[in-house]
Amino acid sequence: MDFTFEAISAEEFERQRSSFEPLTDALRRLIDVGIHTEVDGDTVAEALEHLEAATALLERRQRAGRSTLRHADTGRPVAWANPAVGLRNAIAPPMIIEHEADGTCWSEFTLGPAYEGPPGWVHGGICALVLDHILGEAASEGLSKPKFTGTITLKYLRGTPLGPLRAEAFVERSEGVKTFARGYLLDADGATVEAEGVFIEPAWARDAG
Amino acid sequence: MDFTFEAISAEEFERQRSSFEPLTDALRRLIDVGIHTEVDGDTVAEALEHLEAATALLERRQRAGRSTLRHADTGRPVAWANPAVGLRNAIAPPMIIEHEADGTCWSEFTLGPAYEGPPGWVHGGICALVLDHILGEAASEGLSKPKFTGTITLKYLRGTPLGPLRAEAFVERSEGVKTFARGYLLDADGATVEAEGVFIEPAWARDAG
Repeated sequence: MDFTFEAISAEEFERQRSSFEPLTDALRRLIDVGIHTEVDGDTVAEALEHLEAATALLERRQRAGRSTLRHADTGRPVAWANPAVGLRNAIAPPMIIEHEADGTCWSEFTLGPAYEGPPGWVHGGICALVLDHILGEAASEGLSKPKFTGTITLKYLRGTPLGPLRAEAFVERSEGVKTFARGYLLDADGATVEAEGVFIEPAWARDAG
Repeated sequence: MDFTFEAISAEEFERQRSSFEPLTDALRRLIDVGIHTEVDGDTVAEALEHLEAATALLERRQRAGRSTLRHADTGRPVAWANPAVGLRNAIAPPMIIEHEADGTCWSEFTLGPAYEGPPGWVHGGICALVLDHILGEAASEGLSKPKFTGTITLKYLRGTPLGPLRAEAFVERSEGVKTFARGYLLDADGATVEAEGVFIEPAWARDAG
């Protein structure tokens, strides 16, 4: 595994964010619109031409592969490409993770029609995605330490409605290379899904430490 | 919960699939290209104009909300919008689920850069999404019976590399309203993640049965 990271200054991060965030937002909107459009074949073909033109423009210069940037000030990965929190990945809601001084993490975000499982409800696997991610953030101190999910258990207490949601997570205890984290997905009426996870420091990081 | 479904004939399904699938594929490509583009601000702005034009075209006619279509022949939900299997949801890889006569489900699919967690590896939460979905397919006989995830436990045996993968699931046993399913995510060398889930028939469906 290659975990070499480069640093990005706060200023350069801000420049890239302000340039690329509108692009990701436009793609999120297109994902939603694409799911529910009922326009005829000719209109789809016309839309496709625009999408292909946009692709050709954006392909003119591509970063080679992996996203390994870290914030120069905090040392945390920028995680532009991450499917839960990535500001440049249209798949991500995105979750913006807040880190409290006591190590607790939380995030408030909205899950719209692209995350629907049963009609009107969030797909159970999307609940798992957001909880795996936020438990991992708590266990790894904001992804600043390499920790991998060992085991995660999700208890679905009731359906999670599409719309505004909150996720939170904290570390319960650590034993050697294992960190035990717990968290919740919540709507306005309280918890909908509870998660418990064990996160493990990989052997190569232990050797390096 | 409103679980009213409308039927769609094989012919109409095929017509809609062939019209809309290229659109979803184009969006999947744009998601990937958008993550890694390094073009300058002017080029981003030019691409954005195309994306906004495409959005305006596709918005001309939108289905009202929820996706409740079922195949007229099998009774299974079409699940166009589903974030794991939806042919019209650019977030979905998509998984195409195969159902064996013995109830086993499997799917082969590729997870590219949009699903990356640690550099080069699939995000643990994405592994959870695909496993929650395929266990649910097995437990609900291809989504033909309403079953909700009660509990799911995922054991991460090793990292899951980006690229071609396989998921499989089967029912271990049923006890009253509970169905116990098990499944695996695998690369060419075998299982990377193991999942065990309990799926529950909701009270309203029991009453209706």
